[in-house]
Amino acid sequence: MEASLKEVKDSIGAIPDYPKPGIIFRDITPLLQNPSAFKSSIEAFKKRYQGERITQIAAIEARGFLFGAALAYALDCGVTLLRKPGKLPGKTVCQSYELEYGSDELHIHENALSANDNVLIIDDLLATGGTVLAAEKLIRSTGASVKEVAFVVSLTELGGEDKLRQAGIACYTLCQF
Amino acid sequence: MEASLKEVKDSIGAIPDYPKPGIIFRDITPLLQNPSAFKSSIEAFKKRYQGERITQIAAIEARGFLFGAALAYALDCGVTLLRKPGKLPGKTVCQSYELEYGSDELHIHENALSANDNVLIIDDLLATGGTVLAAEKLIRSTGASVKEVAFVVSLTELGGEDKLRQAGIACYTLCQF
Repeated sequence: MEASLKEVKDSIGAIPDYPKPGIIFRDITPLLQNPSAFKSSIEAFKKRYQGERITQIAAIEARGFLFGAALAYALDCGVTLLRKPGKLPGKTVCQSYELEYGSDELHIHENALSANDNVLIIDDLLATGGTVLAAEKLIRSTGASVKEVAFVVSLTELGGEDKLRQAGIACYTLCQF
Repeated sequence: MEASLKEVKDSIGAIPDYPKPGIIFRDITPLLQNPSAFKSSIEAFKKRYQGERITQIAAIEARGFLFGAALAYALDCGVTLLRKPGKLPGKTVCQSYELEYGSDELHIHENALSANDNVLIIDDLLATGGTVLAAEKLIRSTGASVKEVAFVVSLTELGGEDKLRQAGIACYTLCQF
């Protein structure tokens, strides 16, 4: 592992028994607070995607906004928001997805993207992959292309990377736990 | 007004009668989607704050995350999250504030900041100022200094800038409506 990615991984906190007993929660807030590690995370994404003519980064609410917006600035592209219901002021289209208990929806402004857009989807963490599969479907429904989906952290035991591979979706993660 | 700030202002959308009749909602999503305007907004903040030795940008959930993270990358500093209740995984301290109906709270991780920190608070939009006054109080309660509070948009008729002035808090906004 490159030194800069080791710095990213080492800066991620571990909170035992959160949100429930037996779970180790991977906390990105120490990474965000560490200027060098945060910069390294954005530079790693920048290195991979510069030259790929990404037009928009689709950032998943809310922690995806942090990495998506910084990367959009670094790549000179735009940020398109994927938000929970009731959060976007204009007309939206949406995609629902299953949660452990119940379901939720991701929304996008209906005119946010077109067939000319080449989109990178970004979120902080890949777990089972349910949210990002919905995000990918939602982006494609607008006519735009999805270049790849990218995460700072992947929790490999939860099978998200396998699920994305089975769906034929290219995935890039900075570090695994 | 500088050409780059005019570009920022011109890229902000107006949604009439949202969230209720008679209100014009100022929508930052077209700004975010416009690579040149988004870059101009971050460059304007960067120009003002580089050399001010900001250690952390305190970004207010959720739209403040977008501008706060990009600016932290541009300034080589960290991002500290100010979030709604139940969203931060570690132990937090909080500050409540009044809403039109009821109240809400902003939380910060209890060990996120120290007396060595020189903090810039950022959010997308200044309305009545209630949220940012709570944010400033919360940051100061950690022992850190608050350099200034910054916004992309200020809705001048709602009196937020006056309220901040009366409280002795320095404020910078990119554009006014």
